[in-house]
Amino acid sequence: MLTTTNPRTGERIETDLEVTTAEEVARLADTAAVAFGELARRDRTWRAGLLDALAEGLESRREELVMAAEQETGLGDARLGGELTRSTFQLRLFAEALREGAYLEAAIDHAGDSGMGPGPDLRRMLLPLGPVAVFGSSNFPFAFSVAGGDTASALAAGCPVVLKAHSSHLLTSELSYAALDAAARAYGAPDGVLGIVYGTQAGAALVAHPAIKAVGFTGSLTGGQALLDIIDSREEPIPFYGELSSLNPLVITPGAAASRGEEIAGGLFGSFTLGSGQFCTKPGVAFVPRGEAGEALVEAMVSRAKGAAPAVLLNSRIQESYGKIRDRLIEQGHATLLAAGADGGDGFSVAPSVLAIDAEKLNREATEEAFGPLILVVYYDDVADIERGLQSVPRSLTATIHSDPSETELTKDLAARLGDYAGRLVFNGYPTGVRVSWAQHHGGPWPATNSLHTSVGVTAVRRFLRPFAWQDAPQEILPEELRDNYTGVPRRVDGVLQLASS
Amino acid sequence: MLTTTNPRTGERIETDLEVTTAEEVARLADTAAVAFGELARRDRTWRAGLLDALAEGLESRREELVMAAEQETGLGDARLGGELTRSTFQLRLFAEALREGAYLEAAIDHAGDSGMGPGPDLRRMLLPLGPVAVFGSSNFPFAFSVAGGDTASALAAGCPVVLKAHSSHLLTSELSYAALDAAARAYGAPDGVLGIVYGTQAGAALVAHPAIKAVGFTGSLTGGQALLDIIDSREEPIPFYGELSSLNPLVITPGAAASRGEEIAGGLFGSFTLGSGQFCTKPGVAFVPRGEAGEALVEAMVSRAKGAAPAVLLNSRIQESYGKIRDRLIEQGHATLLAAGADGGDGFSVAPSVLAIDAEKLNREATEEAFGPLILVVYYDDVADIERGLQSVPRSLTATIHSDPSETELTKDLAARLGDYAGRLVFNGYPTGVRVSWAQHHGGPWPATNSLHTSVGVTAVRRFLRPFAWQDAPQEILPEELRDNYTGVPRRVDGVLQLASS
Repeated sequence: MLTTTNPRTGERIETDLEVTTAEEVARLADTAAVAFGELARRDRTWRAGLLDALAEGLESRREELVMAAEQETGLGDARLGGELTRSTFQLRLFAEALREGAYLEAAIDHAGDSGMGPGPDLRRMLLPLGPVAVFGSSNFPFAFSVAGGDTASALAAGCPVVLKAHSSHLLTSELSYAALDAAARAYGAPDGVLGIVYGTQAGAALVAHPAIKAVGFTGSLTGGQALLDIIDSREEPIPFYGELSSLNPLVITPGAAASRGEEIAGGLFGSFTLGSGQFCTKPGVAFVPRGEAGEALVEAMVSRAKGAAPAVLLNSRIQESYGKIRDRLIEQGHATLLAAGADGGDGFSVAPSVLAIDAEKLNREATEEAFGPLILVVYYDDVADIERGLQSVPRSLTATIHSDPSETELTKDLAARLGDYAGRLVFNGYPTGVRVSWAQHHGGPWPATNSLHTSVGVTAVRRFLRPFAWQDAPQEILPEELRDNYTGVPRRVDGVLQLASS
Repeated sequence: MLTTTNPRTGERIETDLEVTTAEEVARLADTAAVAFGELARRDRTWRAGLLDALAEGLESRREELVMAAEQETGLGDARLGGELTRSTFQLRLFAEALREGAYLEAAIDHAGDSGMGPGPDLRRMLLPLGPVAVFGSSNFPFAFSVAGGDTASALAAGCPVVLKAHSSHLLTSELSYAALDAAARAYGAPDGVLGIVYGTQAGAALVAHPAIKAVGFTGSLTGGQALLDIIDSREEPIPFYGELSSLNPLVITPGAAASRGEEIAGGLFGSFTLGSGQFCTKPGVAFVPRGEAGEALVEAMVSRAKGAAPAVLLNSRIQESYGKIRDRLIEQGHATLLAAGADGGDGFSVAPSVLAIDAEKLNREATEEAFGPLILVVYYDDVADIERGLQSVPRSLTATIHSDPSETELTKDLAARLGDYAGRLVFNGYPTGVRVSWAQHHGGPWPATNSLHTSVGVTAVRRFLRPFAWQDAPQEILPEELRDNYTGVPRRVDGVLQLASS
């Protein structure tokens, strides 16, 4: 039997779950392939209704879901409740996107002069890829796990999902799956639209299975690499959408430090300790100007850290890794420990920590990602220092600039430099708290992710779609959205973009 | 000095080109990286003008370009002239797409209620990736080479291009590059927007260079795999867009064979022998119904093949491979040779060949792609035969159905089956002749390509773009297209798609 742990106490939690056998994984993948064919017979409005039903299914079991997650993750009821709301919100947002239909990228080029002589009738649209394997993350038991954005976007695309439950929250995964599965069945979804497996070997078998056509993953670079190796050994390679690591550099200009240093200290402290610092968007490196204003800002963070309660991490592995990286940074002389909060809490708790280093000493050794409430302050003299320093910071999901409105040129300069380093550039705010919306982009250059797509927001659906073109097809063969008189979705007709009219 | 060959005669053609040194490759890649920064300072209208200028530059040297290509490829003046027109047409089509601007996928979510409490202002747009390496193909000296679609789409995206010339048409590559480079310089493009390298090692060094951020490739599965191995050994993995292989199955229903067998025989013969059968969209496998009508259709192809002149292939490697695969199919008893055209032409010529096999005997051995004028007829009894047979046909760029209007259900059934096998489904036509347009999709499931994108048509530009989001950015930091009062491109504002108004 598999067990999880209460990270607040370190106590084992028994489950009645077992590692899924290879045979059962194969059965689930094959059933998903059959369900894929069934889904193709239903239209996108039907799928929108399915997503709404899944949201309602989660909502109806809110209390038990949050209770299970609190027991297994220690993230707190308020945060977990908010995260569950995020899960239901994004299911409904994808339902909206399905009803609107622009995501199909429907296009029609009528037969006629092609610009190079007569051309055939061509119609293009995006179609679902096939069954998708989704690996839940440790740090978001709802929004990046069984009930998360990968699941929502894959189902929105029309792809059945086989989930791999994260070992840190097995019960939450089981309950989330039960809620989704019951809602799907009540809605009339075919068998195999959702499946779930438990255990590392089961996850590996899933990725290797020929029926699986894409993988969504949020986790470590090492974990992602292991799955990529499995994909490399498949006969048919498949897309792997991995969100892997992120340092999220933040730059505070002299003007910002001078005009609102205390406010930034509060905001930054809140951001890097939020959820015990276990966010992929946690600001892990802050460039602070040397001098009075910068030092006062750091001092304000330090005093907060000193007074902070121990922060509970998700599991023993994360706790050990946090301690090791922090100690290595200090002992190998990469950084100085300015302040650590209270140690010695129960369970997997650690002390929130502020470390500092001079920009000229920054190197790749000093910028290893410490998952947890740790920030590395980098003191700089000028923009050249920042530029040099950034070369030691792996490219990230986000980058942040705090500047004063008077520093127009400096802000522009920093924005240009940081744009290459990240997928989202935040101004005078904090990268944690990722809005789920149409214009969001949550992805970044390698090693933040290995894809040119987002895993948050509506455009995440594109990951699970492939373009398809019909040439001179009879009307009855075409999907409804590409037929002559259909006007229910935006389409590009003979090169001209047209809005839906209905 | 490097040489090429006149494939009509086998005679060597001297050039003054040498294998590009590793140092020169590095210099070109570094210069492209500098040019990338320069391009970012120019807007998309400027790039549209550049593409138009490149088209004019090619046009102004049409005669010498076609002459060189005819000498190196033997494809014939008419075909080569048409292909050059295709190159200029697609440059101008991308210019149009740039001016229109929907490809940017611009989106704005204003600050306010996010559906989950207050949300920040988010603005998303696609940005260019960086310098791109483009590998020219052997079979399209213009449209998939130096002056081809990968070059056009990468430049459209805002990415400098470093080309790898194909060894089969070095002079055409050199002249094409000279025409493009002169036009770019006259237009005022920065140094490094275009570069070119010669030689296999130079191509390998290019893919390994850290400044290169994506690779476009049209060629063999083996060649593509070699480049993928280089990418795997890079510190930063980069997207590889490979068009790799394709059998392009074609199904002729009993109704079609009965009502227009002779017409189909002519069309199909023309299609599989077009350009000496050296198209990635050549129909390599044709399912023909057993019985009188089907056999008459095949007989009509056979008599055409018997009377056909020798077909000149592009180089000795392709010629050898063609002969080997054809002989293996026959000698190992996979297929029967129904007819081969005249052998014994000069240079790299071969005999157009029609082979046949029974559906129940079809296996992976029998469906090795023979690049050249060879078609494998597969005799079937019923749809189950086709379905079983397709399992031995690697997934492809295209699939084609010839059916009679009365066969509505059969056509639907075949369309559903073939949809999974290909990226484009052609009805009552031929897959060769790929229209360059907005609704085109030229890509397919593995092993046809390794990407979820097209390499032909306007949406090919998406391969060289990455999404980027700005959070609470000051107006002056934002690209013009995302500023408040800009209306020149279609945008999605607070979830609602809006057309441009100007």
